[in-house]
Amino acid sequence: MRTLKITLAYDGTDFHGWQAQPSLPTIQGELQRVLSELEGAPVTVIGAGRTDAGVHAMAQVASFALNNPIPAVNLRRAMNRLLPAAIRVLEAADAPEGFHARFSARSKLYEYRLWRGEICPPTLHRYVWRHPYPLDLAAMIEAAPMLEGAVDCRSLAAADEGVDSAQPQIRTIFSSRLEPDGDLWRYRVRGSGFLRHMVRNIVGTLVETGQGRRAPSGIAPMLAAADRAQCGATAPARGLFLVEVGY
Amino acid sequence: MRTLKITLAYDGTDFHGWQAQPSLPTIQGELQRVLSELEGAPVTVIGAGRTDAGVHAMAQVASFALNNPIPAVNLRRAMNRLLPAAIRVLEAADAPEGFHARFSARSKLYEYRLWRGEICPPTLHRYVWRHPYPLDLAAMIEAAPMLEGAVDCRSLAAADEGVDSAQPQIRTIFSSRLEPDGDLWRYRVRGSGFLRHMVRNIVGTLVETGQGRRAPSGIAPMLAAADRAQCGATAPARGLFLVEVGY
Repeated sequence: MRTLKITLAYDGTDFHGWQAQPSLPTIQGELQRVLSELEGAPVTVIGAGRTDAGVHAMAQVASFALNNPIPAVNLRRAMNRLLPAAIRVLEAADAPEGFHARFSARSKLYEYRLWRGEICPPTLHRYVWRHPYPLDLAAMIEAAPMLEGAVDCRSLAAADEGVDSAQPQIRTIFSSRLEPDGDLWRYRVRGSGFLRHMVRNIVGTLVETGQGRRAPSGIAPMLAAADRAQCGATAPARGLFLVEVGY
Repeated sequence: MRTLKITLAYDGTDFHGWQAQPSLPTIQGELQRVLSELEGAPVTVIGAGRTDAGVHAMAQVASFALNNPIPAVNLRRAMNRLLPAAIRVLEAADAPEGFHARFSARSKLYEYRLWRGEICPPTLHRYVWRHPYPLDLAAMIEAAPMLEGAVDCRSLAAADEGVDSAQPQIRTIFSSRLEPDGDLWRYRVRGSGFLRHMVRNIVGTLVETGQGRRAPSGIAPMLAAADRAQCGATAPARGLFLVEVGY
């Protein structure tokens, strides 16, 4: 069997996240439906990151095995013909045997978009968190890089995750920066891996820093506490993009 | 009673056009619902242009009468709280008595967006016509300004419009230009007024020119024929934006 690697963009607004669910539209579900149709047999698709409901991707990566000898470029075209327009296959290529979109991934880059204007343009509202209220930008810019390094992520796990609280969850954050561009503030974080809701919890923490409810110097103690109750509220899914997966 | 003028942006994808219809979501219907709630009595909203289903606006203008003494800036905020996020009131202001969004309008600017890449980014597909097939750009750029001037628009009317074919429909087209920008081609047309489907019929005609099915020099005879059967197929609504209304 061949191993294939595809790169995907999607607008997550109308999907119930990555993971296939019976009778609900999901990204993995759509891909498996289309590939099973082309293969004439069930195909299981593995995603580099299992994005939540409403989260978008500019370049998610997925892998799967296929018997069908269709050239990769034709596979890409066939998939795009069968998929909804909100999901696009940007690239398809044969990959070395054993390539696994999730286990082979060495880094992921996420971007979170805050809209600071009072009025969010209707063509943007699916892709940003509108937050027009006062925020101390300098404090947020100062706080963002405090997350860089080898970090125990327990404080940043999803509240309902059931992460073993006795077990450190070490991930390396290569870069963590907030870059304002007029009314659009972009937070970009690249790391070796992320727990569920982690980027949205970081953004919630940065926003609380901007509100003066915590100091930039509070990031390190929050991480040291290894306690989910210490971090900020989870920011909405709509502002989050998986930008890149590194191998 | 006060006369009010509002400027609106909307994503038309999920609406059945401007005009209020019983039990279907429309732009006018949403505005009237919200304003009637604020006024405590039915309010009729007049739009400068009655955009079709799926057509968007960056700055549509509408007018209506109100007894409610709410300051215009608070009215804008209240409307934005009550409207769906796909419709935003950008500005609200008191207008001179007798101001009528449609009859007072002196010009309208529309933009039509063609996406020339094979793959349309999922965050753009609601706002462009994806057309990755060969087109002679030079011929289209040459043809576009041939529509400028005082033009009998009967050839460009909607097929089902019931425009009186014996009666000239003269509108002045101030400018008509195609401006490519990488994979995104923008056609912009400013005129004194437009018949229903007219911009989309112009775009269909330009695309047929790009396909070599008509020459740029064929625009003038098409207009002279004053016959709907002479123009190109109607381009899809999703690529069209009402950009500006002049008074």
